[in-house]
Amino acid sequence: MTTHYFEHPLNEKTRIYLRVEALLHQLDVSGQFSDDLQHLNFFRALFDLLEIFEQIQLKSELAKDIEKQRQTYRNWLNVDGVDQNTLQDILQEVDQVHSQLMAAERFGQRLKEDRFLSAIRQRFNLPGGACCFDLPALHHWLHLPSEEKQADASNWMESLGALSNALQLWLKLTRETGHFITQQAHNGFYQSDAEEANILRLNIPMQYGVYPMISGHKNRFAIKFIEFKSGQAFAGNVAFELAVCC
Amino acid sequence: MTTHYFEHPLNEKTRIYLRVEALLHQLDVSGQFSDDLQHLNFFRALFDLLEIFEQIQLKSELAKDIEKQRQTYRNWLNVDGVDQNTLQDILQEVDQVHSQLMAAERFGQRLKEDRFLSAIRQRFNLPGGACCFDLPALHHWLHLPSEEKQADASNWMESLGALSNALQLWLKLTRETGHFITQQAHNGFYQSDAEEANILRLNIPMQYGVYPMISGHKNRFAIKFIEFKSGQAFAGNVAFELAVCC
Repeated sequence: MTTHYFEHPLNEKTRIYLRVEALLHQLDVSGQFSDDLQHLNFFRALFDLLEIFEQIQLKSELAKDIEKQRQTYRNWLNVDGVDQNTLQDILQEVDQVHSQLMAAERFGQRLKEDRFLSAIRQRFNLPGGACCFDLPALHHWLHLPSEEKQADASNWMESLGALSNALQLWLKLTRETGHFITQQAHNGFYQSDAEEANILRLNIPMQYGVYPMISGHKNRFAIKFIEFKSGQAFAGNVAFELAVCC
Repeated sequence: MTTHYFEHPLNEKTRIYLRVEALLHQLDVSGQFSDDLQHLNFFRALFDLLEIFEQIQLKSELAKDIEKQRQTYRNWLNVDGVDQNTLQDILQEVDQVHSQLMAAERFGQRLKEDRFLSAIRQRFNLPGGACCFDLPALHHWLHLPSEEKQADASNWMESLGALSNALQLWLKLTRETGHFITQQAHNGFYQSDAEEANILRLNIPMQYGVYPMISGHKNRFAIKFIEFKSGQAFAGNVAFELAVCC
């Protein structure tokens, strides 16, 4: 049975974390430059990330959140019934990622100082602005041997390594706090309380032909299912899996 | 020897034609949805095209230009030394494309009326805005069977068929008017007169490590070569191929 996997952030900060995760994934996939358009997704992801870095203090937010996770896990030290080996492994990983994060330069600093990237960034968002006459330097770069392009891409992405590791760890630990439980949405509607939740994870069987519209915050949320074909509220019942992650 | 193929439009209208050509190519390539990010390039191309259609009367511009080409080719009918069979073939193609263009709906009309496309267009340009929680309908669509997605894509692209055929013909006939001739840029600079030219086409050997900055208009243009590594004007001589197309 095909399901539609869906995640929803319950606060603005987590919303940004999930966006950044998606953009880092976009960099990874498109940084192969395996067809003649992947560079579009690559540079767009890079410039979208720069825009996000300019808007919020991502590094300090993330450091605070990793620190909070460290405290939570430390509280389980020497607690009966908690696997201390696993716990030590997690705490070690958290320590490592946290130090790497604190030692990192301001996110995007190296990218912003890159002359080539700065030159192409300005024109990149014009409609159809990736033509050679709009971005001659980019088109020269595209003609360079693959190894040179890959080296540049690795260099740019490496400057985001500390961010990527910290974000991945925070999201992994957060996602692991929730467990999928089958729920019923009656007449296409479901609501529930939560406790300081960050992310909702859903598995929705495709057979219903619906997608979710979710509203809410860390302590309460509502899911309304919409019929894809009509764009209208779905009137039937939907059995779906839900994990609430803190 | 690797060369960098480069095109430069000498007027605003041709600039838009070349952008639209690039966006139609982007639709073609990314409409395969062969990796999990190609849909980003596909929808972005579609929405960039809609933005261009809203800004200029592309259909009437193109009809006028095709008509102008028809007149030019008609003037060669019954002229000695002109291959009349080839000429008839071209005229027939021009007639066909012109009628198809005149019979076509306003460019993008069907796309603008599409509920699904309208719903996702608004949020598509947010930085990192293609996450499932920003665009739940899009993510449902991405989970549909390939055949359904391909059918939608074909349907959207088909509505641009008349535009695509007319633009391709105009650009093909325009490009054919020019012939590549080797030119020398002394101290990285070349300038020349032209007569009602629309497009400059250049083949620049990669060995120089330079890209062109071109300024000018239909009757006169200048090419300044810039060193890619330094971003500064190139001081050496550059032997490159140039075709001036009317």
